[in-house]
Amino acid sequence: MTLHVEILSTGDELLTGQVVDTNSAWLMDRLWDLGVMVRRKTLVGDDRADLDAAIRETTARADLVVMSGGMGPTEDDLTSERVAAVMGVPLELHEPSLRALEERFRRFGRALTPNNEKQARFPRGAEVVPNRFGSAPGFAVRIGRAEVVCFPGVPLEFRGLADEWLLPRLAARLGEVPAGRVLKLFGVPESHADDAMRPLMRDPANADVRFGFRAHWPEVHVKWTVPGPDAAARADRLAAQARAIFGDAVFGEGKEELPALVVARLAARGERVALAESCTGGLVAELLTDVPGASAVLDLGVVAYADAMKEAVLGVPRDVLAAHGAVSEPVARALAEGARRVGRATWGIGITGIAGPTGGTPEKPVGTVHLALAGPSGTSAVERLYRGGRDRIRRTAAHEALNLLRLALRA
Amino acid sequence: MTLHVEILSTGDELLTGQVVDTNSAWLMDRLWDLGVMVRRKTLVGDDRADLDAAIRETTARADLVVMSGGMGPTEDDLTSERVAAVMGVPLELHEPSLRALEERFRRFGRALTPNNEKQARFPRGAEVVPNRFGSAPGFAVRIGRAEVVCFPGVPLEFRGLADEWLLPRLAARLGEVPAGRVLKLFGVPESHADDAMRPLMRDPANADVRFGFRAHWPEVHVKWTVPGPDAAARADRLAAQARAIFGDAVFGEGKEELPALVVARLAARGERVALAESCTGGLVAELLTDVPGASAVLDLGVVAYADAMKEAVLGVPRDVLAAHGAVSEPVARALAEGARRVGRATWGIGITGIAGPTGGTPEKPVGTVHLALAGPSGTSAVERLYRGGRDRIRRTAAHEALNLLRLALRA
Repeated sequence: MTLHVEILSTGDELLTGQVVDTNSAWLMDRLWDLGVMVRRKTLVGDDRADLDAAIRETTARADLVVMSGGMGPTEDDLTSERVAAVMGVPLELHEPSLRALEERFRRFGRALTPNNEKQARFPRGAEVVPNRFGSAPGFAVRIGRAEVVCFPGVPLEFRGLADEWLLPRLAARLGEVPAGRVLKLFGVPESHADDAMRPLMRDPANADVRFGFRAHWPEVHVKWTVPGPDAAARADRLAAQARAIFGDAVFGEGKEELPALVVARLAARGERVALAESCTGGLVAELLTDVPGASAVLDLGVVAYADAMKEAVLGVPRDVLAAHGAVSEPVARALAEGARRVGRATWGIGITGIAGPTGGTPEKPVGTVHLALAGPSGTSAVERLYRGGRDRIRRTAAHEALNLLRLALRA
Repeated sequence: MTLHVEILSTGDELLTGQVVDTNSAWLMDRLWDLGVMVRRKTLVGDDRADLDAAIRETTARADLVVMSGGMGPTEDDLTSERVAAVMGVPLELHEPSLRALEERFRRFGRALTPNNEKQARFPRGAEVVPNRFGSAPGFAVRIGRAEVVCFPGVPLEFRGLADEWLLPRLAARLGEVPAGRVLKLFGVPESHADDAMRPLMRDPANADVRFGFRAHWPEVHVKWTVPGPDAAARADRLAAQARAIFGDAVFGEGKEELPALVVARLAARGERVALAESCTGGLVAELLTDVPGASAVLDLGVVAYADAMKEAVLGVPRDVLAAHGAVSEPVARALAEGARRVGRATWGIGITGIAGPTGGTPEKPVGTVHLALAGPSGTSAVERLYRGGRDRIRRTAAHEALNLLRLALRA
């Protein structure tokens, strides 16, 4: 059965460019994992006539309409009112929701206003969805043959209610949920990943599998969902096949993230890393320290833009800088070794390059980056030429550095 | 005259969550600057029936429909075909576009395929919009009373064509374009900015002005557009009034960005800054070095997580660390002064705090951050307690540090 699902978002702030509706793409991605592609998404403002028309149109077409927004306490918040109007039923006070609101306000030391009471009123006959993520409960009604589910637009609340209530219900309704896997790659362009996956995608045995690619630059994610009774085992088998295709380029699966993975591996080994960054300007440090618990594995990061600092703080020899220039393999090596020594760490990372937009030469064009990793058994170095603007070059280099460390920690 | 504008985006990749449609919010923001609020946005997949229905519905309601996507060379790209079908006219080859495509392919050393030729076919009677940003030209047609403008979905191309062709035409059609201003604030919550602007927003003299707020966290942007013949002068007067209201909290206007502003001011004064970051973990360095030309003003940034590194690299006295703890004003001061001394810089920034999620105590809860700025005339320090998760705390602290430097450089 193909389920016709539409999304209807509301809010003037979404039509002025003030807020980007990220809930929709998030939900679409989750629904894709259930084997459902959303058919249409509609966005209207806080306007009674526009809302009524959109509710009528979407419910005339769809099996399921997910509404987002318009559930707040202010006059602009019209979702319950308009859904009730289209249904031709009154709004009714839902006592348990009112008590939950009162309790919530008491906890924050505030009094409930008549405006807030509005958030406990729903179309007669609605199923109320309690919201432990915020103040406005969601609700579900039936209009014609369509089920209409209304959630607050606040991302934390929308996603919480969708994860907790909508998606499990939908999975149950769909009977069986396809098994989904995500393989995360670094260093493989999306078009190449697509090409490499062709044999699997064209295999008649996989005719019922949905494959997809997501460019989470500089990473590429390969996804697939498998339906049927044997789904999980088949999805796992595909993961093994895809891992064989991509080899070392696979850094993780599912929710695994490269920086968190590196931090976890270092922590498990009781090892630490120190950083000497030039063109990445602190980005590697930032990626690592964004991970809770990073302090256990990172004692020192140095951003040494100036040659004098490379020399004074990290001990890069002046003659090496003079002989090879700051953007060179010997300097990258000296940076990595200096970071390791000064930071008294197991591993040292050195990065030097030209992020642009200026500073390139014919021999060392913008995008030239030397990376080095110093460790217990010596120092290795790689040279890369990245394409794109300053930000892309910096981000790719930073991920590359973490990836080099990941590969070294694999052993 | 109120212009009824709708946006119609197409592409399966937008309905699977693979790609987030950022063009729409971008265009909505630009249209808002022209005094136009988009009435509805619709998103459908690469499906003939869904596209036809959406084209019919939007053109029955709107004065202007902006379509995005479906202009590529593949079978999935249906925009020209479906617009022609709804109009009841054939597709016709547009010779100048074909020659431009051939020229483009010649330049890249590739041969034009029949697929690519498709990108030079448009509904009979269409006005073709040359695209110097990519291969697919845009086009405009009339369906009923609606003007329909179709652009490729690639953001660079969509935005380029909108900026170059659509928005100026629309501005001309609207007669006069309102004058818009954006004031950028740091350290003011959105709700407070709203309250503070109330007197201006309620002033009957500003009844025709549209005000708006954008939370670009941790910044808040206050926007307004003024219509009428005297628009620019009135918009400037409002800017002066808003600056008087917010004082030092205003760090810039229009396209000005805090890191770029700090880099520019340092460069103009021939001064440099050095950084000693703990809880922000390289974020201040990353924000500064993201600005092209940052190397002229930043020689050294140190991420000193471990106390031993604060002592060894930055010379923070061991007894100060022992007496006050790493998260304290004396250590922030010593970090700032150490960075300034070791980095041989005019200014030194020191940041130490608890970004969480663990590490908080009743005396020093998660979110406690000490920031210090060392300069030619001494060292100043502030203590902050930020709310939110690890990422929010780190980002706010990093912006706060740049803001302290901005205020010091103002003199």
